[in-house]
Amino acid sequence: MASSLLFSFMALRHSAIDPVSALGENELVRLLTKGLPQSDRTLHGPGDDCAVIDPGRGPLLLFKTDCVISGIHFTAETDAALAGRKALNRLVSDMASMGGIPREALITLALPRTTSVQWLQRLYYGISKAAKACRCGIAGGETSSLPDACPVVISVAMTGEVPRRRLVLRSGSSPGDLVAVTGRLGGSIRGHHLKFTPRIAESHWLVQHARPTAMIDLSDGLAKDLPRLADASGTGYEIDLSSLPCSPGCTAAQAAGDGEDYELLFTLPPRRAVSALKAWRRAFPRVPLTVIGIMLQNKSQRTPLHGGWAHF
Amino acid sequence: MASSLLFSFMALRHSAIDPVSALGENELVRLLTKGLPQSDRTLHGPGDDCAVIDPGRGPLLLFKTDCVISGIHFTAETDAALAGRKALNRLVSDMASMGGIPREALITLALPRTTSVQWLQRLYYGISKAAKACRCGIAGGETSSLPDACPVVISVAMTGEVPRRRLVLRSGSSPGDLVAVTGRLGGSIRGHHLKFTPRIAESHWLVQHARPTAMIDLSDGLAKDLPRLADASGTGYEIDLSSLPCSPGCTAAQAAGDGEDYELLFTLPPRRAVSALKAWRRAFPRVPLTVIGIMLQNKSQRTPLHGGWAHF
Repeated sequence: MASSLLFSFMALRHSAIDPVSALGENELVRLLTKGLPQSDRTLHGPGDDCAVIDPGRGPLLLFKTDCVISGIHFTAETDAALAGRKALNRLVSDMASMGGIPREALITLALPRTTSVQWLQRLYYGISKAAKACRCGIAGGETSSLPDACPVVISVAMTGEVPRRRLVLRSGSSPGDLVAVTGRLGGSIRGHHLKFTPRIAESHWLVQHARPTAMIDLSDGLAKDLPRLADASGTGYEIDLSSLPCSPGCTAAQAAGDGEDYELLFTLPPRRAVSALKAWRRAFPRVPLTVIGIMLQNKSQRTPLHGGWAHF
Repeated sequence: MASSLLFSFMALRHSAIDPVSALGENELVRLLTKGLPQSDRTLHGPGDDCAVIDPGRGPLLLFKTDCVISGIHFTAETDAALAGRKALNRLVSDMASMGGIPREALITLALPRTTSVQWLQRLYYGISKAAKACRCGIAGGETSSLPDACPVVISVAMTGEVPRRRLVLRSGSSPGDLVAVTGRLGGSIRGHHLKFTPRIAESHWLVQHARPTAMIDLSDGLAKDLPRLADASGTGYEIDLSSLPCSPGCTAAQAAGDGEDYELLFTLPPRRAVSALKAWRRAFPRVPLTVIGIMLQNKSQRTPLHGGWAHF
């Protein structure tokens, strides 16, 4: 298409009056997902880490998409294999947050015609290696071209499975439930955001032994993701900032606001907490499990947390 | 991220030595999909219109992703609702080509922060309306931002279902099978590429009454898609160009090469063809069904067809 046509298109599509940047992601998602049609087998549509579909028999089907973009989710210095690893593992982390396992992924690439084939092979090596590590298949994909000045867009779609009684949603938390988090938070930009291992094993242990009432993975940061869990559950929360399990060299503010931790944040009734914490230490001696607060009845009573990743 | 960092990244990622544009899409896909891990329930991975997954019981699961990009798949003049309709219906057409029905879709948007909210609402209106028309749910999605000079990328992932005995692949054609096509071909750019109705009803009739041995939807054009079906089946073909069902005002060359017809191309044994054609005319009096050629034993014996959509 002629570039003059492209520019006239951009003039039309772009707006100084109502750009998405002025709206914010939460409001945009609320606006766009309102009144969407749902299939008769969809148990949970927009609003959780994955969509939950009931195929009638056997385990529930989880379904999720996500994308990573060069210049945003990885940089010039990033090994393409790590970019691929991250593209896939972000979705595996979403599966973990629902108590599920990944099954099949599809990879959609939108990229400039000038993209190096060697770079793409390295990207696919990383995707493939990460998929093997969690026994996920790569069932296909699609490629399309972008103008030369644009970044690479790697969009991943994933199916997963979860036994019915192990499904954990964001919405199941009650006032009085304790808030707990796996691992350490903050400073992910130093490398963790590329090299994290999704908490699949930990998730399965938790749904079996601690039965979380609600769970979410910390991708946008505690400051953004805890409010989402609380909104879905209709609760407030009190967080003890001094108890946050900070990554070495990080402050509590960084732990709350840096994002891309890919740790599990979950809630559980106090009566199950002590035995769960004790058993956890035997099961995962090298991964901290920390109680950081409590869910409250009053929806508007929430410990102020700052930062987190804004998509727009 | 600082733009200087973005440019240094682009220098690294872009290459004058091995750009994807020099390789071509088929070769790129072959290179990237070689040796990918497959899940134990994947019956057919990369290489058909959709991946085919066996969940153990009940119908087979179909799984597909695709993306449309502003400036490539639609233009400045395009109503955003039609862009949304196209984004969804391209996948519905893929489901039809396997004999399946769409079930749930997820929408991933990568867009400049300046994108107009009203434009996005119109896009979602079109997506939603197209989904309702084929009883497909919109189970969620994801949004991410792109630099301001970039186009909008709309990536759609879709699940579908097909009863086991109704599944049709690209690979089932035999020498001697006739080649047939629904509808009319060519000139799609005049509007059909946005406003087509995926051939779901026709596909279901065909798998029940004509039992195609192989099927594909014509998205990249007969000149590109017929070789794909023949490659998968290990056959050659002879096409009678004078018999191509051309759209009004189109030549046979345009019918073969324009692309974006979203018609069904399929093969069937001659013994089933006469009765199928007769019954088709009663079932779909307004949609032509045309025999355009025959599959051949010799893989390299193929009627030259020119044009079709090249992704790179």
